[in-house]
Amino acid sequence: MKRFDKIAIVGVGLIGGSIGLAVKKRGVAGEVVGVFRRASTMKRAMKRRAIDRGTLSIKDGVRDADLVILAAPVYTIVETAKEVFKYAKPQAIVTDVGSTKSWIVNKVESLKSYSGKSIFFVGSHPMAGSERAGVEAARSDLLEGAPCIVTKTPRTNSSAVSKIISFWKSLGADVKILTPKQHDESVSLASHLPHIVAFALAGAVPLKDFKYAAEGFKDTTRVASSDPQLWADIFLTNRKEIAAACRVFEKYYASVVRAITRGNYKGTVKLLKAAKSKRDKFSYGKR
Amino acid sequence: MKRFDKIAIVGVGLIGGSIGLAVKKRGVAGEVVGVFRRASTMKRAMKRRAIDRGTLSIKDGVRDADLVILAAPVYTIVETAKEVFKYAKPQAIVTDVGSTKSWIVNKVESLKSYSGKSIFFVGSHPMAGSERAGVEAARSDLLEGAPCIVTKTPRTNSSAVSKIISFWKSLGADVKILTPKQHDESVSLASHLPHIVAFALAGAVPLKDFKYAAEGFKDTTRVASSDPQLWADIFLTNRKEIAAACRVFEKYYASVVRAITRGNYKGTVKLLKAAKSKRDKFSYGKR
Repeated sequence: MKRFDKIAIVGVGLIGGSIGLAVKKRGVAGEVVGVFRRASTMKRAMKRRAIDRGTLSIKDGVRDADLVILAAPVYTIVETAKEVFKYAKPQAIVTDVGSTKSWIVNKVESLKSYSGKSIFFVGSHPMAGSERAGVEAARSDLLEGAPCIVTKTPRTNSSAVSKIISFWKSLGADVKILTPKQHDESVSLASHLPHIVAFALAGAVPLKDFKYAAEGFKDTTRVASSDPQLWADIFLTNRKEIAAACRVFEKYYASVVRAITRGNYKGTVKLLKAAKSKRDKFSYGKR
Repeated sequence: MKRFDKIAIVGVGLIGGSIGLAVKKRGVAGEVVGVFRRASTMKRAMKRRAIDRGTLSIKDGVRDADLVILAAPVYTIVETAKEVFKYAKPQAIVTDVGSTKSWIVNKVESLKSYSGKSIFFVGSHPMAGSERAGVEAARSDLLEGAPCIVTKTPRTNSSAVSKIISFWKSLGADVKILTPKQHDESVSLASHLPHIVAFALAGAVPLKDFKYAAEGFKDTTRVASSDPQLWADIFLTNRKEIAAACRVFEKYYASVVRAITRGNYKGTVKLLKAAKSKRDKFSYGKR
């Protein structure tokens, strides 16, 4: 179902590309325009047919768009938003896909180029990803069954929120509404912490022992193959919540290690059982 | 290729069952006999066709076997070995599949029922598994491309070691030879530590935040659904090496957390990059 005449995606990598593919597959927009920094990336996105048309100019890309999706790394989103607000048409809705929200939403809402315009910004975080990067890894079903958080602040326009919620739902995502702060708290535990732990594990285990590693190591460290800069952006813009999430992890981890090293069989089993019974309750979307 | 007339598998769960299926599929033995504690488990293994014949008696199961595989949890392996040595025929080879080796090999080699007999024990650790348990989860290809460590001690018979190496290779495993201590060190880092971290992560993240968790959390915590008692056995019988492995992890983890919480972008990227470049070098067997 067509919901927008024209959607502009600024940054067409794994996420932007997957959104483009899904929008085109599901006929959600009349046209999908990709905005790029580099001609080479544009060529790759055209080859994947993730967009209908590409441009290197933000102005050219966004001026007729009803919906603009900022699909860049966290720090870049704010820089890009500044430009987008200059050229977007009145009544346009602008959203993003950044993995931290308070930092982005505060910065974006305070932009001079945003103030006083009838352009509506709504923060989003589609929680789908892969340790692989780039439009080559994009998939039209990446968002299917994935949680997608849409944020609301006192400045958020209600009608724009409704349209953004419908948009993500139309791509198959499981939409939840939170404040940016609630988002950052929950996601620091459910997503940022697992990434930190995976990076630390991959960093810690000596290369010479990799030949003795099997499925357990493989899965536990998979996301450590993710883009370091992208994740550094995320971690550093959510560091207060991440510090709190780390303390929660460290407490459980220390209990497990203490039980093991003291030879406390009952205590070890009890902690592992509690962890297992929680993990057994987890199911991810339709997968 | 037939390598043994009769193989007895004592304990036919995920690993024992997968060995049975693989042996039968590849024609490695004339007959595969399963030894069980409970009739109900025997019935399930027969239904899966993981064995040719089942018995509830260790004596009946092992007396004619050329190869006996102890496929029970760590603590049970030693208890079972004690009985097996009483009834195994001269020249029989006995191996195990336990995830810790010094503890098992020391105990088994010191058993009174082993001493002075012409039965040959060789420790093994096929590093294939799943968070699922029981013969229902068994797969004939579980060992294909999986690392399998075979241990040697001053008491290990060379000819028996050669036969055991050929046996695991014939099931598709990637065999490495180590001393029990070398095994425990490497595996504490490459396998036990990732399991501890996964259990701790699943235990720490509040249930209410699971709805904001995606692929990252899913993979990082998958092995936390493993059997708590089985893993408590493993952890407690390898606790010295595990304590050392944990210190290695904690050091890297603390550096990452410190860089993030201090807002040190360069330092964070550097640590994540080092972790990523290592993880990118990891490949698991043929998978």
